[in-house]
Amino acid sequence: MARVEEKVLQEIREIVGTEHVLTDETDVKKYSKDTSEWSKMPAAIVFPANSGEVAQIVKLANRYKFPIWPFGKGKNWSYGASMGLEAGAVILMLDRMNRIVEVNEELAYAVIEPGVTQRQLRQHLEDNNIKLWTDCTDSTPEGSVLGNAMERGIGYTPYWDHFGQLCGMEVVLPSGEILRTGGGPENSRTANVYKWGTGPYIEGLFAQANFGIVTKAGIWLMPEPEKFVMFLLDLEKEEYLPAVIDTLRRLSLNRILLSNVHLTNDVLFLSAMQPYPYERLADGQTYLSAKAMASVREKYLISPWLLSGGIYGTRKQVRLQLKLLKQHLKPYGRFDLLDDARLKIVGKITRFWRRYKDFPMINSILRSVTRASLEKIEGLPAVYPIFKGIPGEYVLRIAYFKSQTPAPTENLDPARDGTGFVWFSCIVPLTGSEIDKLKKLCTEIFHKHGFDFACTFVMINPRCALTLQAIFYDKTNADEAKRAQALRKELATVLLEQGYQQYRTTVACYDEILNCTPEFQKLANKIKQVLDPHHVISPGRYGIGLPHK
Amino acid sequence: MARVEEKVLQEIREIVGTEHVLTDETDVKKYSKDTSEWSKMPAAIVFPANSGEVAQIVKLANRYKFPIWPFGKGKNWSYGASMGLEAGAVILMLDRMNRIVEVNEELAYAVIEPGVTQRQLRQHLEDNNIKLWTDCTDSTPEGSVLGNAMERGIGYTPYWDHFGQLCGMEVVLPSGEILRTGGGPENSRTANVYKWGTGPYIEGLFAQANFGIVTKAGIWLMPEPEKFVMFLLDLEKEEYLPAVIDTLRRLSLNRILLSNVHLTNDVLFLSAMQPYPYERLADGQTYLSAKAMASVREKYLISPWLLSGGIYGTRKQVRLQLKLLKQHLKPYGRFDLLDDARLKIVGKITRFWRRYKDFPMINSILRSVTRASLEKIEGLPAVYPIFKGIPGEYVLRIAYFKSQTPAPTENLDPARDGTGFVWFSCIVPLTGSEIDKLKKLCTEIFHKHGFDFACTFVMINPRCALTLQAIFYDKTNADEAKRAQALRKELATVLLEQGYQQYRTTVACYDEILNCTPEFQKLANKIKQVLDPHHVISPGRYGIGLPHK
Repeated sequence: MARVEEKVLQEIREIVGTEHVLTDETDVKKYSKDTSEWSKMPAAIVFPANSGEVAQIVKLANRYKFPIWPFGKGKNWSYGASMGLEAGAVILMLDRMNRIVEVNEELAYAVIEPGVTQRQLRQHLEDNNIKLWTDCTDSTPEGSVLGNAMERGIGYTPYWDHFGQLCGMEVVLPSGEILRTGGGPENSRTANVYKWGTGPYIEGLFAQANFGIVTKAGIWLMPEPEKFVMFLLDLEKEEYLPAVIDTLRRLSLNRILLSNVHLTNDVLFLSAMQPYPYERLADGQTYLSAKAMASVREKYLISPWLLSGGIYGTRKQVRLQLKLLKQHLKPYGRFDLLDDARLKIVGKITRFWRRYKDFPMINSILRSVTRASLEKIEGLPAVYPIFKGIPGEYVLRIAYFKSQTPAPTENLDPARDGTGFVWFSCIVPLTGSEIDKLKKLCTEIFHKHGFDFACTFVMINPRCALTLQAIFYDKTNADEAKRAQALRKELATVLLEQGYQQYRTTVACYDEILNCTPEFQKLANKIKQVLDPHHVISPGRYGIGLPHK
Repeated sequence: MARVEEKVLQEIREIVGTEHVLTDETDVKKYSKDTSEWSKMPAAIVFPANSGEVAQIVKLANRYKFPIWPFGKGKNWSYGASMGLEAGAVILMLDRMNRIVEVNEELAYAVIEPGVTQRQLRQHLEDNNIKLWTDCTDSTPEGSVLGNAMERGIGYTPYWDHFGQLCGMEVVLPSGEILRTGGGPENSRTANVYKWGTGPYIEGLFAQANFGIVTKAGIWLMPEPEKFVMFLLDLEKEEYLPAVIDTLRRLSLNRILLSNVHLTNDVLFLSAMQPYPYERLADGQTYLSAKAMASVREKYLISPWLLSGGIYGTRKQVRLQLKLLKQHLKPYGRFDLLDDARLKIVGKITRFWRRYKDFPMINSILRSVTRASLEKIEGLPAVYPIFKGIPGEYVLRIAYFKSQTPAPTENLDPARDGTGFVWFSCIVPLTGSEIDKLKKLCTEIFHKHGFDFACTFVMINPRCALTLQAIFYDKTNADEAKRAQALRKELATVLLEQGYQQYRTTVACYDEILNCTPEFQKLANKIKQVLDPHHVISPGRYGIGLPHK
């Protein structure tokens, strides 16, 4: 792909204004990196103000044949952040397009632009006393709501399926034309409430793809429930995992469980709590032995797997659901719950504990009473709001797990801070035997490459889960960085052979996607060819437009 | 479009076998009609045995440039049945492709071919003691499960959204290539459990469209609940409709109501119960006066609107949900419930009542005790199973409402029997004021054309409903037939102007769809052009491939 010429940049400046185009190397470089080893230097970072400007730039790209890569906020860390597949791309940062166009409280939806952040949308609802809840990821509050949804990001409430909650889009097509989805008339009353629309449902085309740039979309919001409770189950034994999975499937299929749940293993849990315990590695070891891990669990009173989820409803509904969940899950470990009232008590205990943490007897009594460590209990007030859809930075600290520099106390930015962190994620049927098999297979591969197996299983419907596996590494350690890449590659290869499809991937690995399904790729490429003959929008994204290998 | 030549038919015969191609005029004619006035004579009816044969025929169609129109069972009455847009099409009836390929009880899904009927799938589960429920429409048990889902048909249980329950498809593309959706590898473990897949979600492209022929698909099924209860609310007054709608929205948004519900007006209710009461029309009248309708309601003890829905769950869940529903809905009329035990009692009462129906005093006592008429109560055992997903023919009798020949007792086929019946259906936001406005507007248009307003509102998610409006007419009455067409046309025109999008439409009216949204149609046409350059699959279906007017 040719370099973008100065005269083209000049035309872009004329569209968006000089101050909204970055071409200075120092500025541009900030957008050229992720938490992985991948790095591609863009030609320019462009900040359009509205869909009209986006359309003009797209038309320009067709004229001069340069690639543009749009991003909401570019915070898709470990999945590529704000990079194109090749160096020299024009990055379209849509963060000036941050209008909350409409909130309909009665019908419980909002219409927003791609620059609207998780924090902003929630804040807007609170500021205007609108009794609707957003759902959020556990990543940065500064992430784009729509950007995450188009990547099929997930959250913690019954509205966890971010793409699934979208309804009604405005899309700038590769031709520069502006499309409204839904198949209704321009004055459609149901553009943001009827998902499938009239005629074919085409919104799915724009997720994890490159057929257009979504510049506005409707998103369904959850009415504030009368009562919310978070529940926690500390699995007593590693061997209980399959039985718990089977129980969760039955509870979910029978609609006793009505939100998604997360099952997080000890290593991943630890990564949010504190920096990597390098001191526990024996000489030559690069990951913790089973014995060392057991001692970590003992120290912090954490379990091999922690199940967490939310219950939302009327007081009576929540009481009944809790009772049923407890009844089915209690055999596998300690079942706890947390609500607004209990959270206050936790806060008081934590403050007291912090003050007297160096007094062994107080420490010991509190550990015994709470059956938790101070470190464990300190995380609760940070995690609890996420289950209510309120974003926070606590979980993002995992990205700094192996970093030489600790996570800052606020304004976390793992790409900026040079942390080494890659997600590998795939989908697995929600049965105990399937998940156990996958877990064993992956643990083996992680260990083979010298890494701790850090993983969470997220139930994303009653029939399947996604597994997010975190590869943490120290970027200053060249050997480890190399092994991290090799581990990711082997996971991708082996799991594909075994029939696991990836949930989401990074720009560095788009060539792995669709390559396993030639007729699908051919179809996608045909559509790409007719809609985007010059391949101007994110060429190669999710394997679309790439040649079949 | 040119006639299909004999030598082409001969080649088709070689693919599927001579006995599976109908070209005799008498045979073919049976497939040329619907319950509307529309009629297009096909060239041949072809019954392929598998997707390989379908692919061969598609390739042949590309070679000789003839249009093929695929149907599962061709029972899509009032929406076109088994007709193409133009005469001379080759109709592909997929009803020999009726294999239930797989049922996974643990993960609660089946994989089926398009010839599998509603009755067959349910029967298969029962015969094999598989504790899963299907969802069904209230149309014929002989309808295709997949055909209906691809038209976005609806049912009555929590799995009412038939397209929404599909996951993982095999599609014969217009090129004759066979596509697997989902973006995973060929041995994917999650093809039928993870809906969005990897990369773009493309299954939506094949619903209400013509981009391919679905020859196999996964469909999610509901585990048999511990308890099922059907609830009924007879709205005491017409004026309560908006308040009930607003209540339903709140109940549904707050997940107290977890299935869809139907709100059926008196005329539509009557149409299932008995033939049209022509005797109540005054001279020159063609629809019932408000007074006549009131007297009908009085005679049968039916209400202006009847709300019906199902509750599914554990015993405790059902009890709690019922309590909450009753509490919120009771102010608007009589709240009743029916479960397996009560149904038996209803059966006993009905049998007794039938025997003594000519005794005024017994009649009067039973009317007073049950607060229903014999005719009303007789329908309950026929409708109740539909809420459990068991298909039946009772509701289909509405198609015979104005027919000179009454509905047969079994094996109903409104197209065969020459009934006059057209659905007009559109989507409306789920607010009382919106639905009230639409109801008034439509009633006026129905009356203007001399028809009774027959309508049901179906809540299809917490934010919108679809309205199914039935135009019943007597096909032997030329004037009425003409007025029926004019009524449908005016509904389509006026409602579109007012911003209501159609939910689904008939082959006779495909030109109305997408025409209101030029950029959408242009996109669809571009995709059609590249996937199906010779326009061999259902050309013009849902407006795709038609020129923009």
